[in-house]
Amino acid sequence: MISVLGVDVGGTKIAVGPVDDTGARLAAPLVEPSRSRDTESFLAGLEATLRRALLEFARFGPRAIGLACAGTVDTGRGVVVTSPNLPLVEVPVAQAMQDALGVPIVIENDANAAVLGEAVAGAAIDFRHVVMLTLGTGVGGGLLLDGRIYHGANGGAGELGHMVVQKGGLACRCGSHGCLEMYASGPALARYAAARIGDPAQDPDDALHDLYRRGVLTGEAVAGLARHGYPGAVGAVRELADWLGVGLVSIANTFDPQMIVVGGGVSGLGEALIARARDHVRENAMAPARDRVRIASARLGNAAGMIGAALVAWEALGRGRA
Amino acid sequence: MISVLGVDVGGTKIAVGPVDDTGARLAAPLVEPSRSRDTESFLAGLEATLRRALLEFARFGPRAIGLACAGTVDTGRGVVVTSPNLPLVEVPVAQAMQDALGVPIVIENDANAAVLGEAVAGAAIDFRHVVMLTLGTGVGGGLLLDGRIYHGANGGAGELGHMVVQKGGLACRCGSHGCLEMYASGPALARYAAARIGDPAQDPDDALHDLYRRGVLTGEAVAGLARHGYPGAVGAVRELADWLGVGLVSIANTFDPQMIVVGGGVSGLGEALIARARDHVRENAMAPARDRVRIASARLGNAAGMIGAALVAWEALGRGRA
Repeated sequence: MISVLGVDVGGTKIAVGPVDDTGARLAAPLVEPSRSRDTESFLAGLEATLRRALLEFARFGPRAIGLACAGTVDTGRGVVVTSPNLPLVEVPVAQAMQDALGVPIVIENDANAAVLGEAVAGAAIDFRHVVMLTLGTGVGGGLLLDGRIYHGANGGAGELGHMVVQKGGLACRCGSHGCLEMYASGPALARYAAARIGDPAQDPDDALHDLYRRGVLTGEAVAGLARHGYPGAVGAVRELADWLGVGLVSIANTFDPQMIVVGGGVSGLGEALIARARDHVRENAMAPARDRVRIASARLGNAAGMIGAALVAWEALGRGRA
Repeated sequence: MISVLGVDVGGTKIAVGPVDDTGARLAAPLVEPSRSRDTESFLAGLEATLRRALLEFARFGPRAIGLACAGTVDTGRGVVVTSPNLPLVEVPVAQAMQDALGVPIVIENDANAAVLGEAVAGAAIDFRHVVMLTLGTGVGGGLLLDGRIYHGANGGAGELGHMVVQKGGLACRCGSHGCLEMYASGPALARYAAARIGDPAQDPDDALHDLYRRGVLTGEAVAGLARHGYPGAVGAVRELADWLGVGLVSIANTFDPQMIVVGGGVSGLGEALIARARDHVRENAMAPARDRVRIASARLGNAAGMIGAALVAWEALGRGRA
């Protein structure tokens, strides 16, 4: 038996599991804490985790390793250029791990990996033109154009959370204003809910106010209340869906994709979120995408990055590059 | 000698000229009126013009014809799906002309053709990741991704004028609201100038008011006044540049291209328009595109579509497909 190891490299934990060439997971992943204090300790921790994973999954015959992480990745050189949650600036992670472990290693941006994962083994199976939008603490994106991950000139393509949807709008952590991320992320959902506090029709049981006072009015908490039909939470989800719809129209008009996959924690709301945004696209995007583009929730959840990174490693093995 | 004929098929005129495989024009084009009353008369007129061009340019040995037109084009089938200025809905133009003339014919969207033209023989020579934004009566776009025109799933990709830059903004002809086209087109420039009428600091000689009263306060007229430093016109160009900057930030973050080429009539303003928009990108886009993306005016002007269409025909000849 042969396999590759897919790795989701996060700021707090690293998950590693064996994946076959169809994107199927062969075993439950090994999950270990990530050390993100500085570059050196991070790399040492990653190496130790990968070493343990190679042993633990030895029976699956791992031939290569694919790493997925947030940030700008130069896939050709295997370098993490910058990352929002890892202490990596221009670090040749792939080469470092390959030298230490003697196994071919590739590295890919997590949203790029996720869109490949969804296209091979998730919501967008057999589609070649797929855009992934991930709604979490931030809003990210991945582009599968004509069957291939599109990286742009410097590995920075697909930052769809930083399309401007409101000129002069809210200040974004990226330094710009009015980015989609400020309106369609988990924190935005919490903000829409907070604005409904004090309105008896929206917050009849003071549930939102209560969460707010305790400092736990998060997007996740609002999503939970929305699932139970709590009015202010349902309203907040609608507000988010309206902004998501605007972002999806821009994506449809820009890419004319076969499918837009909506992932990330906020996408756990499923059709409660997606249906309204999809209606907006059907009414506001341009033909032919308006009528043809499919809009669906991601299927692979948190595993999309790991599976996608493994598929990138499989591709590299096939090309004899890894 | 061999060549191909590039054809710019517009709603009011058709321009045809011989082009070599480097994108160089070999002779001044034949320009004839376009008949756009109905599909049948349009096709008959196009055929007659192409027939005359094949005779007139016979000494250049035309081996194929490349047509560029506005609208959604299914390049694989050679079909114009819809067009804003031609009476064509699902019409197999390439096959019809090929049957009539006995010459291989390809057809391409005009902005897609233009980006290829600029990359081979214009402002973006030797770049493989180029986005073209055309600012005219409408705002259009063309995508050259990894050296190839990107069409999307149904030929509709690159409608960059219909990225939403202001949720709930001005109603657009496309049916949506707040599209970039409403803020960065020729008519938008005229609107920004009109809003300055009556302010003695902005319209000291009543030049804007005068144009407005005569019904000729167009984007072109405003651009002309701006070139002479007329304050209200200069202010209007600045307002347009600010919106253009917002659109360019979204493009930079989405595609991380090597270059964004700004074309169309409004781009005749050159650096007066581009410099301010470029500054906005340097301050607001994400790294690495923020620091690396080049932003330049188109070089081929009105000829970009014709030259690009000819290059598509050359590519098709090379592949033995045409």
